[in-house]
Amino acid sequence: MIQPVILCGGAGTRLWPESRGDRAKQFLPLTGLQSLFQQTLARTPAGAAFQPPIILCGAAHVSAVRDQLDTREAALIVEPMPRNTAAAIALAVARADADTLLLVMPSDHVIADVAAFHDAIAKAARLAQQDWIVTFGITPDGPETGFGYIANGDAVGDDGFKVDRFIEKPPLADAEAMLAAGGYSWNAGIFLFRAGRMRDAMLTHCRAIFEAADRAVASGLIDGEALYADAAHFAAAPSDSIDYAVMEKDDRVAVVPAAMGWSDLGSWQAVHTLGEKDAAGNAVTGDAFLHDSRGNLVRAGGKRVSLVGMENVAVIVDGDDILVMPLDRSQDVRAAAKARE
Amino acid sequence: MIQPVILCGGAGTRLWPESRGDRAKQFLPLTGLQSLFQQTLARTPAGAAFQPPIILCGAAHVSAVRDQLDTREAALIVEPMPRNTAAAIALAVARADADTLLLVMPSDHVIADVAAFHDAIAKAARLAQQDWIVTFGITPDGPETGFGYIANGDAVGDDGFKVDRFIEKPPLADAEAMLAAGGYSWNAGIFLFRAGRMRDAMLTHCRAIFEAADRAVASGLIDGEALYADAAHFAAAPSDSIDYAVMEKDDRVAVVPAAMGWSDLGSWQAVHTLGEKDAAGNAVTGDAFLHDSRGNLVRAGGKRVSLVGMENVAVIVDGDDILVMPLDRSQDVRAAAKARE
Repeated sequence: MIQPVILCGGAGTRLWPESRGDRAKQFLPLTGLQSLFQQTLARTPAGAAFQPPIILCGAAHVSAVRDQLDTREAALIVEPMPRNTAAAIALAVARADADTLLLVMPSDHVIADVAAFHDAIAKAARLAQQDWIVTFGITPDGPETGFGYIANGDAVGDDGFKVDRFIEKPPLADAEAMLAAGGYSWNAGIFLFRAGRMRDAMLTHCRAIFEAADRAVASGLIDGEALYADAAHFAAAPSDSIDYAVMEKDDRVAVVPAAMGWSDLGSWQAVHTLGEKDAAGNAVTGDAFLHDSRGNLVRAGGKRVSLVGMENVAVIVDGDDILVMPLDRSQDVRAAAKARE
Repeated sequence: MIQPVILCGGAGTRLWPESRGDRAKQFLPLTGLQSLFQQTLARTPAGAAFQPPIILCGAAHVSAVRDQLDTREAALIVEPMPRNTAAAIALAVARADADTLLLVMPSDHVIADVAAFHDAIAKAARLAQQDWIVTFGITPDGPETGFGYIANGDAVGDDGFKVDRFIEKPPLADAEAMLAAGGYSWNAGIFLFRAGRMRDAMLTHCRAIFEAADRAVASGLIDGEALYADAAHFAAAPSDSIDYAVMEKDDRVAVVPAAMGWSDLGSWQAVHTLGEKDAAGNAVTGDAFLHDSRGNLVRAGGKRVSLVGMENVAVIVDGDDILVMPLDRSQDVRAAAKARE
């Protein structure tokens, strides 16, 4: 049995205006009828293979989580303030039995090929039983410069590779070289490990984070299925990513490469790429009229959007906010989000 | 004294979505705080030179006319159904004394140089006293293909020219040739004539139109300052433009050329051209945030519009309708208007 741990703490302005405030990206139906969080839940259904999930989220998102869980069983751990992924994962580790296998997943990614994901989970679980901390490596399909990379070291049986090193978001030339060379994968922030193994690693590599989280759990408030971590203790945790705090420092970290149709949907351009499109390449949600227009992303948000002669733009409507930009300027949406929020 | 007659019957979808249904273009504040209709009223203020105006409008626009007249004195003639400009003008002619000089003006144009307009009115009035039917010719400032042209014939004193002929909207090559040759002007649909002279011309050239209008006035319903033309009689009037019905057939028609900053504001591109713009060429009304964006027209319509990296587009918001198109595709807005209305 594997214990899914879903990280739901992010807010994310890269998909502004739909993603903002208490309606974070993971709760939006960006690629179909279900939200990314609901799709994440559905990937590891409670049953023979998986326990009901542990959801880590901020106080602002508890009601969204409960709404979208609907009748699904889950345990919530509420972070009183954001302290990055290391402290969030430490909360889950502190609550778990040492021999439980924790599968940590972001809540806002797309995985098109769930069978391939389950296959990778099986490999990762075997490695985790041998006390490897496992990260899932996404097989690159292009020289992306927006992700960190993982370099394979020696093979560990048939299931994966020892991690040789983690590589920061690279310049394009380096990304192209890695793509050409092979043996590299994208770091997707999906992990599998034995809870006791991670506890020991944290006590070695980032003791202050684990101890703060451990105390925040011990002093936490239990409310039904939710544990509200204690604010004073949790606030003492240094804010660091699990990559920096543990993965890059530990010497028994493995990567399981997986080609599973993964996307972090990190921009409106990515939403367009993954979306269902008409013959003219337009991906449309809601009431949109398009005349002589190609390659656009329109999310009408309950309004009536009309495009005449437009190409390759995003028109995103959310409440009273209307965003218009070329899809290839999607990374610049933060300028508008910052001005508007 | 000159009697202004303001034609307020148009609906116009070229400025959709703002212009539609009972909110026709002439009632919108497109170039400032005042609507085009209010600007038209202000051009011929009641006083020594001008009588209070006669407003011709459809039943759907009576309340907009009354709202925008505010406390100004005016007479209304309500057209029970649209029958084009010849029949509308015939209604005004039928109500007027034979010796009254009628100055007929569309209600949805811009005239930046009112002094030049008044100067042209003075010239036209002198010609009208000599029983010329006068049309105002706009001195072209480019090879426009969207307007009809008027070719000057012989000079009539210092005030204008006999019209040699009217020319339909020309191909670009012809428009360029006329611009180069000189002696041509745009037909702006502004007329000045003695009422009795026009009555006689109509009885000669389009008797059915005048008689239908005359009967519609005689059988009309008087309600305060408004005359509601009789529907059964008015419906009998053939639908024709004053240009076809009279101007092109009469042999005593003069043109008074005028360079007066005229625009028919016939497209969102024209609204952008005439609008006040920031240093980056953006003309903005309402709550708009523009990042790295140039040459756009944004009318936010009470919503919050954000543009990132956009150039030379119109974003027009009206109620739940949002129109996005390149400014140079403005002529194609009808496709959206037709689909949406």
